[in-house]
Amino acid sequence: MNTSKVTFVRIYLTEAEAKLDALIKRLHDWEHVRGVTVFRGISGFGPSGVMHSAGIMDLSLNLPVVVEFFDAPDKIGMILEHLQGMMEPGHIVSWEAILVLDNSTKTPQ
Amino acid sequence: MNTSKVTFVRIYLTEAEAKLDALIKRLHDWEHVRGVTVFRGISGFGPSGVMHSAGIMDLSLNLPVVVEFFDAPDKIGMILEHLQGMMEPGHIVSWEAILVLDNSTKTPQ
Amino acid sequence: MNTSKVTFVRIYLTEAEAKLDALIKRLHDWEHVRGVTVFRGISGFGPSGVMHSAGIMDLSLNLPVVVEFFDAPDKIGMILEHLQGMMEPGHIVSWEAILVLDNSTKTPQ
Repeated sequence: MNTSKVTFVRIYLTEAEAKLDALIKRLHDWEHVRGVTVFRGISGFGPSGVMHSAGIMDLSLNLPVVVEFFDAPDKIGMILEHLQGMMEPGHIVSWEAILVLDNSTKTPQ
Repeated sequence: MNTSKVTFVRIYLTEAEAKLDALIKRLHDWEHVRGVTVFRGISGFGPSGVMHSAGIMDLSLNLPVVVEFFDAPDKIGMILEHLQGMMEPGHIVSWEAILVLDNSTKTPQ
Repeated sequence: MNTSKVTFVRIYLTEAEAKLDALIKRLHDWEHVRGVTVFRGISGFGPSGVMHSAGIMDLSLNLPVVVEFFDAPDKIGMILEHLQGMMEPGHIVSWEAILVLDNSTKTPQ
């Protein structure tokens, strides 16, 4: 199994934040990250302690959103430096992971 | 880049479990965790092997739900001790991660 | 706290790919993995750079889907070997994590 080290990133926003579109556009057009997936939570709270929840009656609510991506550690390090001006502190989490590249039988990891 | 070590946690439940609300309330009111996000899956199965899936006709189905949060490792250690009485074994997963705190140029990690 | 090492896996697909059902069936019927959760993203892009997004008018869009599971490292290693023929390279990410097993007071980790 041929694998490669990657850094995995999750960034926490809410739907109402205009910066979501700017962030996706930046990751797509400028940073050329391998791929990005955006997930909407059904409820949550951040450091303010205010709950954001989806009830039947409030579909337009300001729900939590997570932007997830991964790429080579050096590239992610640069991207995180670039993103710091755009994001509030304490909303970006990252960790090391392994990407399965193909089914050749090269040395793992 | 100023960063800090955190422990990241994901807890697996289903919507039908009354303990979801109790868990969120506990994390919010008692544990004062930095933030929590709840995601609903579109399908899944647990150790019982029974599939839970969302079809067009069964919006009220018992879908999988994940409660995600992170905080300082010591604080998470204590929270996990507290939660064990509330949760079934084998439904809490955690790993070490890095939180990007701000854009000052202090020593990384 | 009694814990055990696990390998955590996330596999990135899109809804339109027929392989989603085959993957879930394989993980359920053949690999007998501890549990699987499937999440639908609200937007995203992969190595092709093409955006997949959910608007109000296009509920049938080809959205990103993530299949998430975890189990003992040896078992996951075998499962990943099996899955490589089914998946495109670069769509499987994994990392090491800790599973909280029960509230007995055995040696942690």
